[in-house]
Amino acid sequence: MCRWQAYSGRPIRLEDLLFKAKHSLIDQSMSSRSAETPTNGDGFGLGWYGTREVPGLFRSIRPAWNDFNLRDLAAQVESPLFLAHVRATSLATVQETNCHPFRHGNWLFVHNGEIFEVEKVRRELLMQVAPELFPEILGTTDSEVLFYLALTFGLEQDPLGALERMAGCVESVAKAAGIAESLWMTLGISDGKTVYAVRYASDGEAPTLYYSKAVEDLVELGLSGEAAEKLGHEARMIVSEPIGKLATAWVTVPQSSALRLSHGTIEVTPFKPAAPAARKVTRPGSR
Amino acid sequence: MCRWQAYSGRPIRLEDLLFKAKHSLIDQSMSSRSAETPTNGDGFGLGWYGTREVPGLFRSIRPAWNDFNLRDLAAQVESPLFLAHVRATSLATVQETNCHPFRHGNWLFVHNGEIFEVEKVRRELLMQVAPELFPEILGTTDSEVLFYLALTFGLEQDPLGALERMAGCVESVAKAAGIAESLWMTLGISDGKTVYAVRYASDGEAPTLYYSKAVEDLVELGLSGEAAEKLGHEARMIVSEPIGKLATAWVTVPQSSALRLSHGTIEVTPFKPAAPAARKVTRPGSR
Amino acid sequence: MCRWQAYSGRPIRLEDLLFKAKHSLIDQSMSSRSAETPTNGDGFGLGWYGTREVPGLFRSIRPAWNDFNLRDLAAQVESPLFLAHVRATSLATVQETNCHPFRHGNWLFVHNGEIFEVEKVRRELLMQVAPELFPEILGTTDSEVLFYLALTFGLEQDPLGALERMAGCVESVAKAAGIAESLWMTLGISDGKTVYAVRYASDGEAPTLYYSKAVEDLVELGLSGEAAEKLGHEARMIVSEPIGKLATAWVTVPQSSALRLSHGTIEVTPFKPAAPAARKVTRPGSR
Amino acid sequence: MCRWQAYSGRPIRLEDLLFKAKHSLIDQSMSSRSAETPTNGDGFGLGWYGTREVPGLFRSIRPAWNDFNLRDLAAQVESPLFLAHVRATSLATVQETNCHPFRHGNWLFVHNGEIFEVEKVRRELLMQVAPELFPEILGTTDSEVLFYLALTFGLEQDPLGALERMAGCVESVAKAAGIAESLWMTLGISDGKTVYAVRYASDGEAPTLYYSKAVEDLVELGLSGEAAEKLGHEARMIVSEPIGKLATAWVTVPQSSALRLSHGTIEVTPFKPAAPAARKVTRPGSR
Repeated sequence: MCRWQAYSGRPIRLEDLLFKAKHSLIDQSMSSRSAETPTNGDGFGLGWYGTREVPGLFRSIRPAWNDFNLRDLAAQVESPLFLAHVRATSLATVQETNCHPFRHGNWLFVHNGEIFEVEKVRRELLMQVAPELFPEILGTTDSEVLFYLALTFGLEQDPLGALERMAGCVESVAKAAGIAESLWMTLGISDGKTVYAVRYASDGEAPTLYYSKAVEDLVELGLSGEAAEKLGHEARMIVSEPIGKLATAWVTVPQSSALRLSHGTIEVTPFKPAAPAARKVTRPGSR
Repeated sequence: MCRWQAYSGRPIRLEDLLFKAKHSLIDQSMSSRSAETPTNGDGFGLGWYGTREVPGLFRSIRPAWNDFNLRDLAAQVESPLFLAHVRATSLATVQETNCHPFRHGNWLFVHNGEIFEVEKVRRELLMQVAPELFPEILGTTDSEVLFYLALTFGLEQDPLGALERMAGCVESVAKAAGIAESLWMTLGISDGKTVYAVRYASDGEAPTLYYSKAVEDLVELGLSGEAAEKLGHEARMIVSEPIGKLATAWVTVPQSSALRLSHGTIEVTPFKPAAPAARKVTRPGSR
Repeated sequence: MCRWQAYSGRPIRLEDLLFKAKHSLIDQSMSSRSAETPTNGDGFGLGWYGTREVPGLFRSIRPAWNDFNLRDLAAQVESPLFLAHVRATSLATVQETNCHPFRHGNWLFVHNGEIFEVEKVRRELLMQVAPELFPEILGTTDSEVLFYLALTFGLEQDPLGALERMAGCVESVAKAAGIAESLWMTLGISDGKTVYAVRYASDGEAPTLYYSKAVEDLVELGLSGEAAEKLGHEARMIVSEPIGKLATAWVTVPQSSALRLSHGTIEVTPFKPAAPAARKVTRPGSR
Repeated sequence: MCRWQAYSGRPIRLEDLLFKAKHSLIDQSMSSRSAETPTNGDGFGLGWYGTREVPGLFRSIRPAWNDFNLRDLAAQVESPLFLAHVRATSLATVQETNCHPFRHGNWLFVHNGEIFEVEKVRRELLMQVAPELFPEILGTTDSEVLFYLALTFGLEQDPLGALERMAGCVESVAKAAGIAESLWMTLGISDGKTVYAVRYASDGEAPTLYYSKAVEDLVELGLSGEAAEKLGHEARMIVSEPIGKLATAWVTVPQSSALRLSHGTIEVTPFKPAAPAARKVTRPGSR
């Protein structure tokens, strides 16, 4: 299990949310409220949209709580949209390329959860990734595979549809390998304008996910007056665990749901894995 | 290009060869004599056989020249057989899982060279890796793929034969992708008893490889008296670049050759890529 | 607060105690039973005595729980005497030179605790360090200063006496700076033959410290049969937190006590800070 | 020896100078033209002024050439004034706190060179640092000591005067320790508005230092048209080694000189070590 956070609103200095808010994501890296993995110290990552289309990425294998470069970066950078992630793993190696967010062009992707018994299906799933995307896969997490599957199934054209096809593909490949309930996830995704999020598990018991419904709730986080004023009316956050002292300020995302956050409006729709259109599998020698 | 070194003989303190010898591998990490890549500062690795069947592995993304843990480890550990590697890359990410040696059971593997235009064939080559070995691949180098292909083609039963089949497979997949001359390598491999090495390139211009023919030559490295005495008559080294001041002490391995080093005896045989026996390729859903 | 462990006995493979024992030190790096700092993820270190007088040192800023090099090293190295430490800091930078053990010649030193308001006295205490030792100080912890003060006051000739003088010096300098109760510590120290340990705090509330009184107790740790047999009758451990499931197997070290462990015999004596003999302080220009 | 670079002008994307220019500082990290230390792979650092008074700092122990976070940061951040540094050391440990720039409040400091036989005088020099500044010293370089001495002698009020007093202090302490010619340096310093630089050595043989006299020269660096246009007429650089293909575009700073760069105007004045006003040295117990 990991912890992540997405912000969309007026440009905010990252440290206001990442460090200064009560029970911030950085606090959660050392002591989240999750009973299973209170420690999320296996690296972290930050993806932020600035003045370019392609977002910046800062990922490190150090625990977020003791990385001074992150602290400095967060003190300098202002961004209207960012995703941050602190990692806990018992499976994949701790290396920068396994830290979230993953990036493709202007897209960012974070994940909390796992594919059960992923070692039985990873190879098969990798084969489903479009050959032209394959060389971009640099790490060994199931998360990165989910991202590249979603890209393969059209994330850039039809984000939520592609995510449903990705989920359908994983469940189908896993079922063929004898894994009945394979997928367990929350996802945070953005193209720099809209934030998409998903809460879904094959067994209906996905990890928690929350969003803030009004900027006033964010002020409860303990933001400084100056910071809060800058947020603007459209500021919203999506988090895997409530930030701030008032858990009541957060709305729980229902199981099997997708979120679409744009200009302060959050749409919640059902999320239902779909059969991906058949893809011709490349065979050795046939490229 | 990278630089590597293999030692086989009586147990020697690693620092005697890695740090104290003239123009040692650690010196080569900062200033090798290669015109192309004098700097091999993109991480390093050390694999050594001790009192267990499985060798120890120490790999780091730091340049070998400034890593104090390596210095200390080399000062403590004595080993009758080790492989060490300093890395230079312009392609794959610098992360521990991309540092050599790679290990599978009691086997170690180091590589200098590359697969040309590997991004065009990496996916295809990965598919040739036996599905049961696939989950062990943790990095993104072409080198690690070569190792797992060799294991797939029987490295543990028939080392040099498997390496020829691996080379044949790579060349054949590359040719199908329009790459005429794909392979360029020296390899160092061991099971803890025998050291195997290969110098081969598709175009006949593989990187340099040398071996020492007598223990007296090793003494020329500038080893301390005490260290030299401990080496014993069967001590031999295989290196991608001469260590010590006397390059004349080293025998050049001919192009397209394989080496087999055991108990001080070095056999040099021709190395010729071979067609691997057909492997049934796993298709989605068919496992 | 940190966590540490010392072992003395027949040579044991480090992994048997560091990784395989129940609630081992590595487990404690992620979830110690301390209410204050359950997470000790700010680096770790291992010092072990091998075949040389000078012990080996392996220190890393990564959390101990996710460092593969540590795992491999512990699987290879056997040692009759080692000290290991996992760190939690809210003060000093996370860097290798701040990881314990600290080493001087054949001596190793680990510390759990702190000097209160150390920022007020660090400069003064550094000035008390013998000028010839001063250049060896490479980090910024209070712990390292304690070690070099102890060396200054004769650790190598009279270990426990020197530690008492060190404590006296710290308390006296701190008192002059207005800090009434400055010292809070457990210490583990060795010259490769004897292990010394101290539990002391100025306010009488030092962190916990335990030792094992018989090898049978160590077997309760959940060691494998093979490992337990190798330990020998003189095997003993000193730990800041019980390892294994049976906390009852451990003897609590009383407040204000020093331990001397040699050949399986543990002597517990009172520890009482002493006034160090006056040292001429070096003045600018007077060297 | 190290390599560094300072830029002052209109806000520029850091990558335009750090990565895209010919023979950029990042190129110099692997292969500078210095005969002595072609490799500057012992960490790097970047200090940039953004929208706050306090500059951002990003420092890493990795070689600059293979750090992806640096690449991303440089692609995102725009700054009107920054200092960057790539490090080569044979003395001090490679750790982030030894990477330049050093920072105090809104001041940044980079150094190339060394204090000869610094181990003989480091303690003495540290004692000359104002006690209230002392706790900020986190590393073990002579460079950081130079910075804190300069701050002690009034850097914030009278930059060039303080640097002369710092140099005088070092030379005088070193002379007392039997070191005739102790100082060998170029320095780059800024408060976010003005850039100061010094080229000085006790023996008159300081490392090289250059500045650009007109924005047209910077265009010769191979900047993209878009980047060059953004520079503005006041854009200037100070470098320890020419960037770009045209070494002739650069003006050599004379030995024993100080530079003051503000709004495109560079004043060169003589630099002459001065006796610092006597400082009362703190004695143990006297604070």
